[in-house]
Amino acid sequence: MLTEFNNICKHDKFMIDNKAFYKLSYGLYVVSSVSEGKKNAQIANTVFQITSDPLMVAVSINKQNLTNEYIHKSKVIGISVLSVETPMEFIGQFGFRSGRDTDKFVGISYKIGESGVPIVLDNAAVYFELEVEKELDVSTHTVFVGRVLNAEVLKDMDQMSYQYYQDIKSGKIQMNLHDSMDKTEKPIKVTGDMPKYQCSICGYIYDSSVGDLGSGISAGTLFENISDNWSCPVCGMPKDKFVQVS
Amino acid sequence: MLTEFNNICKHDKFMIDNKAFYKLSYGLYVVSSVSEGKKNAQIANTVFQITSDPLMVAVSINKQNLTNEYIHKSKVIGISVLSVETPMEFIGQFGFRSGRDTDKFVGISYKIGESGVPIVLDNAAVYFELEVEKELDVSTHTVFVGRVLNAEVLKDMDQMSYQYYQDIKSGKIQMNLHDSMDKTEKPIKVTGDMPKYQCSICGYIYDSSVGDLGSGISAGTLFENISDNWSCPVCGMPKDKFVQVS
Repeated sequence: MLTEFNNICKHDKFMIDNKAFYKLSYGLYVVSSVSEGKKNAQIANTVFQITSDPLMVAVSINKQNLTNEYIHKSKVIGISVLSVETPMEFIGQFGFRSGRDTDKFVGISYKIGESGVPIVLDNAAVYFELEVEKELDVSTHTVFVGRVLNAEVLKDMDQMSYQYYQDIKSGKIQMNLHDSMDKTEKPIKVTGDMPKYQCSICGYIYDSSVGDLGSGISAGTLFENISDNWSCPVCGMPKDKFVQVS
Repeated sequence: MLTEFNNICKHDKFMIDNKAFYKLSYGLYVVSSVSEGKKNAQIANTVFQITSDPLMVAVSINKQNLTNEYIHKSKVIGISVLSVETPMEFIGQFGFRSGRDTDKFVGISYKIGESGVPIVLDNAAVYFELEVEKELDVSTHTVFVGRVLNAEVLKDMDQMSYQYYQDIKSGKIQMNLHDSMDKTEKPIKVTGDMPKYQCSICGYIYDSSVGDLGSGISAGTLFENISDNWSCPVCGMPKDKFVQVS
């Protein structure tokens, strides 16, 4: 029998602390595919090299996602490794919504690889093109293992880690999104006692003591004073999707 | 036909730049198992959560490693997520040598989990205990997918990323290993024009302009002036395994 207490699940003599999973390390990727002329892409964090001879890379994708369906049919995968400077809105364009309802490639730079897979170029430090050779069914997800067809470095820039992305979303650090500002500036560490509001769709936290520089909302602006036209800088959802969390 | 040029392999119309693989993100883990009363552990970087309901984690292990053989037989896995302060010598104790020749658990704190698997506690921020449910054969490696039995946070400390580990090994950053020094100090960024020597076993680079603080070798010490008793701070190999690289 499972009981939950303070984020810890107990099952007879076993115990699972969900916070332990935060200490596994991942990157942040746009994973793309195509099927019958229709292309789709999504955000993923579980991409990893399995072997070097032959060069094989694995990707884990939720079965409910359209990208999973396309990969399963076409056996081709594009992987764009997002650079550390990727704006949150860009990540939001590929996450938190389904390719069944929207064309995620509108306004995006991409190319069609030799295998026919679309490869997202915007904000990508490097990309990979894979041909799937194996699939492993793991409950809600499929692990696709693909042979690497192409691998190219697009710009010499650090990749974004999943931890860094989570720290921005949770308000622990604030990315500098102003083009006019010095790009070499380090992200600001956030410590504030002012009210915080969380986006119920993607988990982004608006901290009044920090504001949302990328949308021109300066530090100290109370949530209720932000225009109703403002939307979540991560997933683009409207202001009424936010709830106060502190 | 494969041709290699400047680290780039070309295969007809396809092209693979090996530097692209450096941009995939990983952590650093001790992966352990047991078989017929014999325990073993090794360093791995490919550990990742696949599903959350049920909680399933995957690990990729080279088939030539003893740990692979033990996991395959016993179906149990221990994973210790190394903290960012883990000394290189500790990592060296589990990597770069085989459990067939040495008992890697000598002098190490560990516990036996409910499943019987040994779990390394020293330098671990958190640990997981898994029971293998699926195995995927991928050429030189096996991807083991296990149900999470236990997951515990041991100390509230950041995990070590594989990138950080590589940066230390390659001499890009130098870890502060002196207990008497201020633990909050940031690692030193290394820029030196003095000769460098590389360990042919693990790839660690000795930079004369930096020294090896953990072994009491101060910055400015030429490689030839280091005692012959000195050994590689990462893998423990003797001085004669080093070759000059600059």
